Amino acid sequence: MTATPLGSGAEFDRIRAIVAALGPRAGSLGNDVAWVSLGASHLAISTDVSVEGVHFQREWLSLEEIGWRATAAALSDLAAAGASAIGVVVALTLPAGEGVATSTRLMQGVDGAVASVGGTVLGGDLSRGEVISLAVTVVGSGERMLGRSGAGPGDGVWVTGQLGGARAALEAWTGGREPVPNARARFAHPEPRLAWGRWLAAHGATAMLDLSDGIAGDAGHLAAAGGVGVRVSLELLPIHPAVALEAGRAGEPPAVFAARGGEDYELLVTMPAAFAGCGEVPLTRVGWVVDGAGAAFELAGRRLPLSGYNHFE
Amino acid sequence: MTATPLGSGAEFDRIRAIVAALGPRAGSLGNDVAWVSLGASHLAISTDVSVEGVHFQREWLSLEEIGWRATAAALSDLAAAGASAIGVVVALTLPAGEGVATSTRLMQGVDGAVASVGGTVLGGDLSRGEVISLAVTVVGSGERMLGRSGAGPGDGVWVTGQLGGARAALEAWTGGREPVPNARARFAHPEPRLAWGRWLAAHGATAMLDLSDGIAGDAGHLAAAGGVGVRVSLELLPIHPAVALEAGRAGEPPAVFAARGGEDYELLVTMPAAFAGCGEVPLTRVGWVVDGAGAAFELAGRRLPLSGYNHFE
Repeated sequence: MTATPLGSGAEFDRIRAIVAALGPRAGSLGNDVAWVSLGASHLAISTDVSVEGVHFQREWLSLEEIGWRATAAALSDLAAAGASAIGVVVALTLPAGEGVATSTRLMQGVDGAVASVGGTVLGGDLSRGEVISLAVTVVGSGERMLGRSGAGPGDGVWVTGQLGGARAALEAWTGGREPVPNARARFAHPEPRLAWGRWLAAHGATAMLDLSDGIAGDAGHLAAAGGVGVRVSLELLPIHPAVALEAGRAGEPPAVFAARGGEDYELLVTMPAAFAGCGEVPLTRVGWVVDGAGAAFELAGRRLPLSGYNHFE
Repeated sequence: MTATPLGSGAEFDRIRAIVAALGPRAGSLGNDVAWVSLGASHLAISTDVSVEGVHFQREWLSLEEIGWRATAAALSDLAAAGASAIGVVVALTLPAGEGVATSTRLMQGVDGAVASVGGTVLGGDLSRGEVISLAVTVVGSGERMLGRSGAGPGDGVWVTGQLGGARAALEAWTGGREPVPNARARFAHPEPRLAWGRWLAAHGATAMLDLSDGIAGDAGHLAAAGGVGVRVSLELLPIHPAVALEAGRAGEPPAVFAARGGEDYELLVTMPAAFAGCGEVPLTRVGWVVDGAGAAFELAGRRLPLSGYNHFE
């Protein structure tokens, strides 16, 4: 198994340097999930860290929501693998002096998210830290070892749900405003799309990843991992209703705002050309796969340079 | 599956509160590892977080050592389960402005530790944080689902290796001195005891855990988890040679210093009464299991009240 090529960005430069240093031992680094075969079973494993002040501010969310959101973000990688959840382990850090209720409420949020997809909290570790952080590791199993690297020329590019709602909430908070309720819910209580991911895997998905950095960044990862080009028509993006107001404030067309919005935790998936969508999963075709390299975005007939959210910028 | 009773301490009060809140969903919380059966295989999963300023100071260790130590600490839970390592996933946080070399060197240390026990780095997540932290989740497999709860009256209580070396290094550093090399090595480069753990599991171990809090604390967990009493003769402890000097400075008898020393990552194991040790694994019998409750420690015929290291004190 070799490491998967990544798109551009400072965070990915770091991962590339690690992959170069580890050489053939780098394995599946650069994927959202690692697949391991154990006997006749395929096991999917992924880890995701949420840090106060980086991924959320404490005044924005209840403790239960912080736990839910961190866990949903991690489970989203299982969704993109087409896997079922077995459970999660959580490494939690808390500032000195926090009451016992703080860890309990955080873990109730964790448990709620994992229960919503049929899994359990398997274990954890608790330590003092400067801020609240949750490193959530998810373990699941799947029928096929689906990843982000299988897209082929001619495949359609599809997304689930609606995009930009989480960013609309984030822009409101950072601008000192209270987000509208449906935007707030998208940020505070993302639904991990495991059932949708399994349906897509069973219906021929060639590659899948979750939209954690926004399609502006994640489409580039899909292209790099598959050794293909990805073309996205921004007119086709399914835009969350809360985007209109915040996009105006940000001075961006709504489709660009939605494309650059991270942390929606919807799925970005390539499907065979003949796939036509269905009623069971809310799916929108937004582009296609071509021979070539990189992701390109068009709006009103013009090519736009876009990039996703980067935790190291 | 029900949650495992825990010994005393503020950290464990937090875990008890979480277990109470989650009720029957708490599963294996309170164990070092969670065991999950997948097809015919038994999977062992555990997570362990290492935080700069809490578990280590950056001036004490090289970046490779920080990565090794965090990973060895996590792998130690697999050792105590009698499991083999499959691999690790790592959620890494770094302060803004750290060079690319920082993450690479940390991950080279992680890879070194997991390679030393035959596993690989399966994946990870990278984020900005106030300090360096590594949440290392280990995944392994085993023949039997050994945990900390099976000790029975009449069993012998054994430890591997030597105790107190890591604390000797810690006391030197916190006192402004450079530790002697063999103490420093115990802190900076602990060897995960997976081969020993498997040997003990195959030779009838009834319960096992790793000495992360020191036998002064961990013997209480073994007693609580098994619903038994544990008696330890401190005269019998195998004491690391670096302890003598630091115990004198700390004003503690060397055996007490070693018993209260955390993070040696040796194994504490109960074996059937007939077990007599062997030459393959360095083992010392330090006590026995009785009907009753709690851990009791004797030195020179006197009962001593002892407790282990607590991250929330």
